[in-house]
Amino acid sequence: GILGKDSIAGVGVDQELISSVPSWNETFVSRNFTNAEIAYCQSQPSPAASFAARWVGKEAVFKSLGVSSKGAAAPMKDIEILPDAAGVPMVTLHGEAQSAAESKGVSKVHLSLSHSETIAIAFAQATTS
Amino acid sequence: GILGKDSIAGVGVDQELISSVPSWNETFVSRNFTNAEIAYCQSQPSPAASFAARWVGKEAVFKSLGVSSKGAAAPMKDIEILPDAAGVPMVTLHGEAQSAAESKGVSKVHLSLSHSETIAIAFAQATTS
Amino acid sequence: GILGKDSIAGVGVDQELISSVPSWNETFVSRNFTNAEIAYCQSQPSPAASFAARWVGKEAVFKSLGVSSKGAAAPMKDIEILPDAAGVPMVTLHGEAQSAAESKGVSKVHLSLSHSETIAIAFAQATTS
Repeated sequence: GILGKDSIAGVGVDQELISSVPSWNETFVSRNFTNAEIAYCQSQPSPAASFAARWVGKEAVFKSLGVSSKGAAAPMKDIEILPDAAGVPMVTLHGEAQSAAESKGVSKVHLSLSHSETIAIAFAQATTS
Repeated sequence: GILGKDSIAGVGVDQELISSVPSWNETFVSRNFTNAEIAYCQSQPSPAASFAARWVGKEAVFKSLGVSSKGAAAPMKDIEILPDAAGVPMVTLHGEAQSAAESKGVSKVHLSLSHSETIAIAFAQATTS
Repeated sequence: GILGKDSIAGVGVDQELISSVPSWNETFVSRNFTNAEIAYCQSQPSPAASFAARWVGKEAVFKSLGVSSKGAAAPMKDIEILPDAAGVPMVTLHGEAQSAAESKGVSKVHLSLSHSETIAIAFAQATTS
């Protein structure tokens, strides 16, 4: 029905060299990832690649919301990315990220992640409904 | 009109080094590409780049459908990518991929492909209508 | 309301090595970038990266419109990309690009740009409303 139709609020793309995401740094990790994300990444074949993919995922989601960056103060922990039963990355927003999304009428952010040997990339799409 | 409005079912991104897609391997090619795709790729200036772009395209389409991966058994030949008259890659689904799309109400998958000297990348978006 | 709902007309992805975009070439720059884009890129910390990101952005927007490429004659200057107050890249179409968009009913192109040390990437989504 009509109520289920989406309107696009914004898109976001981000990429990083996996080696440039400091997933070995406990302060970086605890500051930017939730406990559930940390447990998931550490259970994967390549935790560094999983952390990097989630990191660029958070950046892509942030870009899709179309709000000004706060640089190092951006609440990346407020953008939580966990796989559903089929392995699709699902985005849950908390705190300031949730407030920003609500202020823009964003009800859902679709996300896809990819990593090769060296590069992690993410694409996000924020929709209103 | 209203009937033409889309709702987003999922997005997918994928990338690979062109050199990591074994387009020289006849078994890989015949298993994963249709005859029309093979003819198209072989007619291009760089068949290896064209096969790699289509390969990541298939992976991106698969991700956009939001179904669980079957790994090596995934029916990549069931995701066919051929250019329209303007060169836009058009996605046609067959077999299990078509069934998966129908079960999710997906009526159209938009796709874009890009390759540089070394990397192929694809973005897909599955929509319902 | 219903009038605000979007339908997707096309998507576009593009990537290039930053070093492969000849931003040091004044003819290339003046041919493909507007004065406002040139001023913006030259004000950024890495003008080369900014020019490269905008270049792949123009290519991605062009792909999202689904029109045949004219190769070197494609009016890339007609696709203007400038940041809004929040830093989100906004697309304005002029000339032939605007005509192509109108002929497809495209009213808005969403765009996101990313650059690492070496690679620039862009994703575009054209919507009708």
